[in-house]
Amino acid sequence: MAEHTKIPYKIYLEENEIPTAWYNLRADMKNKPAPLLNPGTLRPMTAQELQDVFCDELVAQELNDTTAYIPIPQEIQDFYKMYRPSPLVRAYCLEEKLQTPAKIYYKFEGNNTSGSHKLNSAIAQAYYAKKQGLKGVTTETGAGQWGTALSMACSYFGLDCLVYMVKVSYEQKPFRREVMRTYGATVTPSPSMTTEVGKKILAEHPGTTGSLGCAISEAVEAESTRDGYRYVLGSVLNQVLLHQTIIGLETKAALDKYKIVPDIIIGCAGGGSNLGGLISPFVGEMVRGERNYRIIAVEPASCPSFTRGVFAYDFCDTGKVCPLAKMYTLGSGFIPSANHAGGLRYHGMSPVLSQLYHDGIMEAISVEQSAVFDAAVRFARVEGILPAPESSHAIRAAIDEALKCKETGEEKTIVFGLTGTGYFDMAAYEKYNNGEMQDYIPGQEELQKGFDGIPRFPGNEF
Amino acid sequence: MAEHTKIPYKIYLEENEIPTAWYNLRADMKNKPAPLLNPGTLRPMTAQELQDVFCDELVAQELNDTTAYIPIPQEIQDFYKMYRPSPLVRAYCLEEKLQTPAKIYYKFEGNNTSGSHKLNSAIAQAYYAKKQGLKGVTTETGAGQWGTALSMACSYFGLDCLVYMVKVSYEQKPFRREVMRTYGATVTPSPSMTTEVGKKILAEHPGTTGSLGCAISEAVEAESTRDGYRYVLGSVLNQVLLHQTIIGLETKAALDKYKIVPDIIIGCAGGGSNLGGLISPFVGEMVRGERNYRIIAVEPASCPSFTRGVFAYDFCDTGKVCPLAKMYTLGSGFIPSANHAGGLRYHGMSPVLSQLYHDGIMEAISVEQSAVFDAAVRFARVEGILPAPESSHAIRAAIDEALKCKETGEEKTIVFGLTGTGYFDMAAYEKYNNGEMQDYIPGQEELQKGFDGIPRFPGNEF
Repeated sequence: MAEHTKIPYKIYLEENEIPTAWYNLRADMKNKPAPLLNPGTLRPMTAQELQDVFCDELVAQELNDTTAYIPIPQEIQDFYKMYRPSPLVRAYCLEEKLQTPAKIYYKFEGNNTSGSHKLNSAIAQAYYAKKQGLKGVTTETGAGQWGTALSMACSYFGLDCLVYMVKVSYEQKPFRREVMRTYGATVTPSPSMTTEVGKKILAEHPGTTGSLGCAISEAVEAESTRDGYRYVLGSVLNQVLLHQTIIGLETKAALDKYKIVPDIIIGCAGGGSNLGGLISPFVGEMVRGERNYRIIAVEPASCPSFTRGVFAYDFCDTGKVCPLAKMYTLGSGFIPSANHAGGLRYHGMSPVLSQLYHDGIMEAISVEQSAVFDAAVRFARVEGILPAPESSHAIRAAIDEALKCKETGEEKTIVFGLTGTGYFDMAAYEKYNNGEMQDYIPGQEELQKGFDGIPRFPGNEF
Repeated sequence: MAEHTKIPYKIYLEENEIPTAWYNLRADMKNKPAPLLNPGTLRPMTAQELQDVFCDELVAQELNDTTAYIPIPQEIQDFYKMYRPSPLVRAYCLEEKLQTPAKIYYKFEGNNTSGSHKLNSAIAQAYYAKKQGLKGVTTETGAGQWGTALSMACSYFGLDCLVYMVKVSYEQKPFRREVMRTYGATVTPSPSMTTEVGKKILAEHPGTTGSLGCAISEAVEAESTRDGYRYVLGSVLNQVLLHQTIIGLETKAALDKYKIVPDIIIGCAGGGSNLGGLISPFVGEMVRGERNYRIIAVEPASCPSFTRGVFAYDFCDTGKVCPLAKMYTLGSGFIPSANHAGGLRYHGMSPVLSQLYHDGIMEAISVEQSAVFDAAVRFARVEGILPAPESSHAIRAAIDEALKCKETGEEKTIVFGLTGTGYFDMAAYEKYNNGEMQDYIPGQEELQKGFDGIPRFPGNEF
């Protein structure tokens, strides 16, 4: 292990090496992601229509598929400096434990109070809302990481923050709610009786533990009934992937610094923000024909948008109040089982990633949660970090790839995104520790029900 | 703020700048801390006597007051590299919020899964236990940070780990227990019926929520009844302060790198391990006559060992099974109120720090917990990090000193130790957020009861 002395355990960029522009992959994509459609007219959403819901500057970013680099405003750069650069860690201990010739690196985004990468986009969205002179923002949160991140960002800029939290997470993670309250946010379990759409969903599914799709509908309605508010979203949208490219740009800069070229890049995928952010600069090289990588998205078997969904225009939310997006989807009516990776329980997928997957530029696999927690505990015990269940999907895949290298003897370089920590997921770990964790794979009939709810119109065959 | 461009938000040492030896302040102290006494013979504990309880190598470190630098074994250095160096952060945002001319820095030890500095000593103690061929270790934990750290360290080296957790923390922090279990530890709430001393304490104080002193007694008894086990302690002892000097050595190296000389150094004090570790290299300069600093220990008003205790030989534990230490103490029978800073609820104080305080080399203040949480929330909202209640005692004092600078216009440089994160303290934050937090200051009569339990013998007047 002569290399041991050369490559540090943790590669930190210098503060002045933190990227000062986000990378807009869409500018380089040959097949651009399809535009959002107005569900009434089935025509592309205009900037004006989108501005009713989103901040003006964020709408501009959402629609911009031509500018490759978008400067990061100084205020956001300053905030980034409080918790970035995040380390790119060489998993020496995991490699040794696995006895693999593979070299494993992970980009760790959990070293901030929100516990995940979500803060990268939250601070950007809060900044643009403040700049526009708004009073506050509304949002949904699944695992609670996005809501926490947004609470922190809003507190920093003095904005009001209303969070609809998926009920299963609200119940499993009471302390997440308290972190958000500490940062001044108002947190409501979703579905709730505070919105019309929430009441409707509760009437139809009285026992539901909620889903990201429901919570989005409620947050959008809450925005539409308040003056001086806009809705913000923590994943799926192009703008969010754009902000999250700070992850991939830092990763690439750190790898380049040590002349490391990855063979495989792995990320968990719920709405796709972390994965999209991580892979963007690498996929940019691929679509520009400069270099090739193997890219793997990992999703839960209980909510398999990529691996068992269809590529079609569908609603982003359960209440069908949002625009239609062309994406891999299980249908906006699909309500995933109460998997412990709350952040991955989303029926759809980022249109950017969906297009890449459709074009064969990336792969996707699904894994079951008990196998995910096996990997999480294994990782925690040797690498010291207790990972979030979401992030552990990527760990599972990285370990499996490293074990394949052990069989073949290949010295592949694997990079994966470790999106966050599991400190607020101990109820899930408790189930695992007690041997009570169960897997769930939806049957074909259940999936078909979801597909049946996808709108049909000419050009939307699937 | 021209300096803004020169000093980064976070100063990270390079991996090869991490210190490779701990600094043993006792070697340079003119008045050495008094030795531990055998409570039966009232004679200094011999190495042999101590080896019944502690690992051999740790006993040697405990008794060594002549060697200034003790090399850190390579295995421990390798583990340190997984989560160290920790950043020295310039609190630009807090300074701006306070509108103070003071320059505030904090050494942040919370970026690891144990959530605190405790891992620095845990990994060392586990290493020496493993090297000695032991099966496992027993310990106590207050806030749960030490227990978590030790669980991680034991899991890394494949040692069994039995943790007695102060009951109030066990109940307030169920998820802490689960982190320890995830790392393979066995966790018992203390006082418990699993030990003779636990039974006795429960009989005398049926409603007690426990204390570090009780839990120590139980852990020591558990060690003494098992073959191949030793007892390990997370604070108070000389060996623990020694390992924690990694904090101060890194801090000093980072400050020196940017030619920053602090005026004031602040740390919270429970048993004294973090404070001792942070200040050792600075106090070394003081006792060698090279430079002067103002050093401030901050303790909770509900458990004021320094500010209202006496300097005397006393038992380290409630059950009186441990040796006598010369220290500032409230009496080993003093059971502190259920303050939310569980890690600071200890009746005594490190003999090293006690000697320094007695000699006027450092100051001490006490603060009430509602003021501490005010500071914690203020800090969290501008600096992004949600601090542990223990650490927030130091934040309170740092803010107060910075506000004094605002009045006087002095541009003092303040460094404080931010020992950990509050992710497992959300029950306490919830009380604060709901306006239900109460302060408690023990009355003189209550203190006197504690003092009455301190052993009297010639030379132990107070």
